[in-house]
Amino acid sequence: MRALVYDGPGDINWRTVPEPVIEAPTDAIVRVEATTICGTDLHIVKGELPEVRPGTVLGHEAVGVVVETGPEVHGTRVESPVIVSAVSACGNCPYCRDARYGQCQGGGGRLLGREISGTHAEYVRVPFADHSTHPLHGNLARDDAVLLAEVLPTAYEVGVLNGHVSPGDTVVVVGAGPVGLAAVLTAQIHSPRRTIAVDLSPTRLEAAEGLGADAAELPGALLADLADGPGADVAIEAAGTPESFVLCTRAIRPGGHIANIGMHGRPATLHLEALWRKNVTISTGQVDTSSIPTLMSMLSAGQLRASPLVSKHLPLERIEEAYVSFAAGPTTGQLKVVLDAG
Amino acid sequence: MRALVYDGPGDINWRTVPEPVIEAPTDAIVRVEATTICGTDLHIVKGELPEVRPGTVLGHEAVGVVVETGPEVHGTRVESPVIVSAVSACGNCPYCRDARYGQCQGGGGRLLGREISGTHAEYVRVPFADHSTHPLHGNLARDDAVLLAEVLPTAYEVGVLNGHVSPGDTVVVVGAGPVGLAAVLTAQIHSPRRTIAVDLSPTRLEAAEGLGADAAELPGALLADLADGPGADVAIEAAGTPESFVLCTRAIRPGGHIANIGMHGRPATLHLEALWRKNVTISTGQVDTSSIPTLMSMLSAGQLRASPLVSKHLPLERIEEAYVSFAAGPTTGQLKVVLDAG
Repeated sequence: MRALVYDGPGDINWRTVPEPVIEAPTDAIVRVEATTICGTDLHIVKGELPEVRPGTVLGHEAVGVVVETGPEVHGTRVESPVIVSAVSACGNCPYCRDARYGQCQGGGGRLLGREISGTHAEYVRVPFADHSTHPLHGNLARDDAVLLAEVLPTAYEVGVLNGHVSPGDTVVVVGAGPVGLAAVLTAQIHSPRRTIAVDLSPTRLEAAEGLGADAAELPGALLADLADGPGADVAIEAAGTPESFVLCTRAIRPGGHIANIGMHGRPATLHLEALWRKNVTISTGQVDTSSIPTLMSMLSAGQLRASPLVSKHLPLERIEEAYVSFAAGPTTGQLKVVLDAG
Repeated sequence: MRALVYDGPGDINWRTVPEPVIEAPTDAIVRVEATTICGTDLHIVKGELPEVRPGTVLGHEAVGVVVETGPEVHGTRVESPVIVSAVSACGNCPYCRDARYGQCQGGGGRLLGREISGTHAEYVRVPFADHSTHPLHGNLARDDAVLLAEVLPTAYEVGVLNGHVSPGDTVVVVGAGPVGLAAVLTAQIHSPRRTIAVDLSPTRLEAAEGLGADAAELPGALLADLADGPGADVAIEAAGTPESFVLCTRAIRPGGHIANIGMHGRPATLHLEALWRKNVTISTGQVDTSSIPTLMSMLSAGQLRASPLVSKHLPLERIEEAYVSFAAGPTTGQLKVVLDAG
């Protein structure tokens, strides 16, 4: 089959590799119908995640059709359309039993496109298939389905739920890339009074307004905007830089919540001399994808409209071009690029 | 009357000052029967809290008897024995209505011994008396009562409750001064499996074992102790240094809670490059004293035994000597010094 292979830092190739086969009795093989690219993939391509070995097929988000299952797969049927979660979960360890699949200690975790070959391919082997795929609602648009594999649950669980977004809140989202925009979108589930998106890119700020942000501001404007009141009830960090994290700690009101989604490569300064008396909560984390069923129901029912997060479609075989396009997003305003197969 | 006055950095004096009078209709005057000294008082004496002006009577913890009330005090009766909370709460602002008295925006907050004269005196004026005092249960020991004014609720609310200590947890308390020891004690309310106290002082570690810690360790030993498992479920920071905070972030398991109680004068390094994927929660805050009624009931019923936190009694007029004794606590093992009047 054809797949996008990480052959080393800066060296990715759409080339022929062996088709995946069932390796464990809980595996399934899924034929990929659509996949997309994540910011993490760009970090991997730069060689910033040393656990990803050359020869690994990239990608951890997909929708597709089950074509084969191992003998211990019971809930996932051949020919079923499924979402392949970014998190492969054993379903059995203490963390999985607490629905904290992202911290799976039973051999699962964030395997696809990192520790094992992933979804940027015609076929993908999905470990622990019963806990790592979700059957697709019949009326779900394909773009919505592929966004459910990671970006929507990440924004919702790690940003909105960890940040305790509540009715009437002022919510600040720092970083209006796809994850930040998904936070702007899913924050609205909990009826905040005001959602403010912050970014350096005018095109991303425009996208934030399109997704329901009440205001879209450059970082310098945020603190002035909040100066009239006690500060933000919730600050969602979706940029992954020390500066954006510190901006969140300055924007937050006493008693507020800072929810970090961003992937950080460097430490930040925690101004405990200012924060120790402010009764703030700071959360970090990766997605569990436990919210996929809830978000899928809302998308199916038309309560959420996520399709503006997709800015481009390309056929799967043009995925190298899609990486270039997606990487330029911060300046061009490109958001999620969906790759369609077959 | 006689009172301990902050006359400037390093300059405190037990001297004659005017007796306090009712200034606002919601004030009460309380005759102090017992008071104690807090680590914050030591910071004030060093001049580290510039908002404390020379001429201010120190102290924010007391039990006493109400001797006079303003015309708008309704629930607090003359001749009643009361606990004077370290937090003066207006009872009416949005924060007070949410029981977040420590963040009162209605003119209250941490006034006593900071913005107005406090409890290290024969008499103290208590603003917003109905929300800032608690009637004393008849059978409560005086030492227990004075510990309820701040140290017990601080450890319980900011450490144990913010840290979500839960049955079966491994709880680490970094810093075994009076607040840390109170955290060791009140953590047991929630039935952890194992409580580990960490300090540099052998006498404090011994005190921690006396208060129910299952282990008492030097900082270097903690990480080795935890190396067999995933880490601590809860880490309570009660020392207030960047190093102790970082130790908490290294000790915590994925999905765990770090509760900061310590008062910090400097920033700490937040190792987001390690924490962003760990699903940890970090909380900061000052006490609301909303837990005084609960803790008072438990002390009255004998469910909690807090008296080992008091290591010395002196008459109120010897409070200057008590400051010296308390300040030496980290090396001598001195804990709370209670000053008795009358």
